[in-house]
Amino acid sequence: MTLLKRSIAEGLGTAFLLAGVVGSGIMAQRLSGGNQAVALLANTLATGAVLMCLIAALAPISGAHFNPAVSLADAIHGGLPWRELPAYWFGQLSGAVLGVAVANVMFGLPVFFISHRMRGGSGEWLGEFVATFGLLAVIWGCVRSRSPLISFAIASYIVAAYWFTSSTSFANPAVTIARMFSDTFAGIRPQDAAPFLVAQFLGAVAATGLFGWLAPSGRPHQLERTVL
Amino acid sequence: MTLLKRSIAEGLGTAFLLAGVVGSGIMAQRLSGGNQAVALLANTLATGAVLMCLIAALAPISGAHFNPAVSLADAIHGGLPWRELPAYWFGQLSGAVLGVAVANVMFGLPVFFISHRMRGGSGEWLGEFVATFGLLAVIWGCVRSRSPLISFAIASYIVAAYWFTSSTSFANPAVTIARMFSDTFAGIRPQDAAPFLVAQFLGAVAATGLFGWLAPSGRPHQLERTVL
Amino acid sequence: MTLLKRSIAEGLGTAFLLAGVVGSGIMAQRLSGGNQAVALLANTLATGAVLMCLIAALAPISGAHFNPAVSLADAIHGGLPWRELPAYWFGQLSGAVLGVAVANVMFGLPVFFISHRMRGGSGEWLGEFVATFGLLAVIWGCVRSRSPLISFAIASYIVAAYWFTSSTSFANPAVTIARMFSDTFAGIRPQDAAPFLVAQFLGAVAATGLFGWLAPSGRPHQLERTVL
Amino acid sequence: MTLLKRSIAEGLGTAFLLAGVVGSGIMAQRLSGGNQAVALLANTLATGAVLMCLIAALAPISGAHFNPAVSLADAIHGGLPWRELPAYWFGQLSGAVLGVAVANVMFGLPVFFISHRMRGGSGEWLGEFVATFGLLAVIWGCVRSRSPLISFAIASYIVAAYWFTSSTSFANPAVTIARMFSDTFAGIRPQDAAPFLVAQFLGAVAATGLFGWLAPSGRPHQLERTVL
Repeated sequence: MTLLKRSIAEGLGTAFLLAGVVGSGIMAQRLSGGNQAVALLANTLATGAVLMCLIAALAPISGAHFNPAVSLADAIHGGLPWRELPAYWFGQLSGAVLGVAVANVMFGLPVFFISHRMRGGSGEWLGEFVATFGLLAVIWGCVRSRSPLISFAIASYIVAAYWFTSSTSFANPAVTIARMFSDTFAGIRPQDAAPFLVAQFLGAVAATGLFGWLAPSGRPHQLERTVL
Repeated sequence: MTLLKRSIAEGLGTAFLLAGVVGSGIMAQRLSGGNQAVALLANTLATGAVLMCLIAALAPISGAHFNPAVSLADAIHGGLPWRELPAYWFGQLSGAVLGVAVANVMFGLPVFFISHRMRGGSGEWLGEFVATFGLLAVIWGCVRSRSPLISFAIASYIVAAYWFTSSTSFANPAVTIARMFSDTFAGIRPQDAAPFLVAQFLGAVAATGLFGWLAPSGRPHQLERTVL
Repeated sequence: MTLLKRSIAEGLGTAFLLAGVVGSGIMAQRLSGGNQAVALLANTLATGAVLMCLIAALAPISGAHFNPAVSLADAIHGGLPWRELPAYWFGQLSGAVLGVAVANVMFGLPVFFISHRMRGGSGEWLGEFVATFGLLAVIWGCVRSRSPLISFAIASYIVAAYWFTSSTSFANPAVTIARMFSDTFAGIRPQDAAPFLVAQFLGAVAATGLFGWLAPSGRPHQLERTVL
Repeated sequence: MTLLKRSIAEGLGTAFLLAGVVGSGIMAQRLSGGNQAVALLANTLATGAVLMCLIAALAPISGAHFNPAVSLADAIHGGLPWRELPAYWFGQLSGAVLGVAVANVMFGLPVFFISHRMRGGSGEWLGEFVATFGLLAVIWGCVRSRSPLISFAIASYIVAAYWFTSSTSFANPAVTIARMFSDTFAGIRPQDAAPFLVAQFLGAVAATGLFGWLAPSGRPHQLERTVL
């Protein structure tokens, strides 16, 4: 599989991920009659569901990162060659921005319009660190055991993290940047993005370091071990 | 498995799919006290759940298309023989109409009554193109990797697309035609159906073309590749 | 595995199934502030979830029928020996009644108190026929293909059928009888039970007959066939 | 895998489990506008989802107990060596308390603040016995059949038990103790904890005894047996 095809797969997947996040946020806000919990439930369900099927469909092509922090972690760990990281990042970022544009247009909104939704504060920054740390912990744990449910496990994690982190778990630099371009339910003000990005990369690197020690991939995989 | 049995399986599955879509729409509308987001959540859950179990149960018999656009895409790709396409379409269409009739009667409504629900506009037409493009992308991606979770992945996609496309993702010509025959939550006016059908076939063909280049099935399947 | 152990497993599973159905109905009614759709969403989620884990846990012991109509269908098809059917039915019925008693007591209600909830009419009777027909269709389809997702597929079916059938899909004679003993969200008046039971057995027998012709188990299983 | 690494994995998993339970409870309470059923739906979804992905990710390392009653049951059954039980309990308890602290801080609350939420009475104590009995029944059933869906089955059980037990199913001594330290949706008053703990250990021991007779692991696993 050429790098071109793999970065197109990353772009395609990240585009549908963002269309899912932003589009379902718009639909949820319009229909929920002001009940924010019902709106977030719908947004959560759609995000988890689209993530699950995208990973199942595209992982065999590109690995289905859809996330610059995951690609960086994979490069640190020795999976993705460093020279391929820029192509992955480019695919993810352009896909993310395209996905937001498609969502905006489908719902009759401007192609791009900058978000005014304020997000931040130390609690939410900690939330982004925790969210991305947990995401990478789930990824590394499932990858080491070659879990057949990995697509479902990663989507489950995001479903949970939307609710248990105070920032509603962006956990993804491409998602963070793209969500600046829609002034809707899922948006974030441009001036609030930088600390989110820093927290996300720190969380990803920390989890990758911990799992490098906790469950090094050099050892044989422990597929046989059951839960108890 | 004879073509007769396979087209009956397509009819049976599409009938339950439509009973699921239309029946749960009626129930949701009656119980939700006017909160459209709660109604759509219930409709989404029921649609995804019935689709998952129908694919798991009937895929070994007929392939579990339940969708004329999917059957066409399969014929283009060389899976379904062209001469069998009319039998598949006939099974899907008659099953879909039967399913709507059963849903209507179960809820004490006329067997058929034409929908007055207006749907359309360029945003929703784009929505149908995106919805069907994504559906075929998920199908081709999962088929190429022989994912054991394919039934769940396809249902997940529809769950998400109900929320992230402005048209609530019909993504299926048989579903579109059958939903004209129930003037309830899930209905669509007959005069609004044609552009939906065009967008659906375009989306299916576009995704099939893209994946024919991106991940041609002639190459050996990359089952071994994990997510990272 | 002795018949005693298998019928105890049937009783244990059916007890938890009924505790799940009735208990979650009580909790949902108490918390939902009168929104019936929210209450049914919670009841649906709990029923599907408990069914999935019970099948996964107990199928290797007893087959995880939890349903006299399923046991009858299995006997017709030649799986369960006819002489074992009474022990299965006894386990299922006593487990179901025990489960309702436990649910009632957990929520501070009388051990048993007869339901006054009226259910019936030709639409709901058709609903029970359709519900049980579909349940057996999903079971036979998944059994023939030895789907690894069978526990999830059956639970998914019930989740959907709660919403798309007008009777909210009892689809189980033991569940129908036991739900007479709790005058709560999930209850049914004793005088309304008989037509539900008739419709359920008819639906189960019809689906078993159809699948005996459509996908006879004597032929080799078509595990290799993918969705398209 | 050393005992140190395994107890750290238990601590990490239990920390994320508690952050999931408590954090999603706070978010749900803030957003749900007073509808307790909607809040509990969100709390349920997040708890089930985080549990599923944590088991999938960490079971190959430590067995993914995250629960002192499960570790005790495993020791009784001969899985976990008795001398390793204190390290598992220490990891679980410190992880649980850490997870609550992180949740509190993410949402701008004090690191620890004692709950005033009253819970108890014979119905809820019975609820905790039933909840933990069922949890261990699902675990032992799935372990004996080596179900590939075990992570999903256990999460499904907890999702259901949140709704069908009157106590909302703590079913875990570490969770019970840690939830004393947050005066929010998921909290419990310290003086109410003791009977919960007693009921949980009794339920775990009873289910372990029953399954030791019902499905002894010494016999060959019945993997081949399908649902009917």
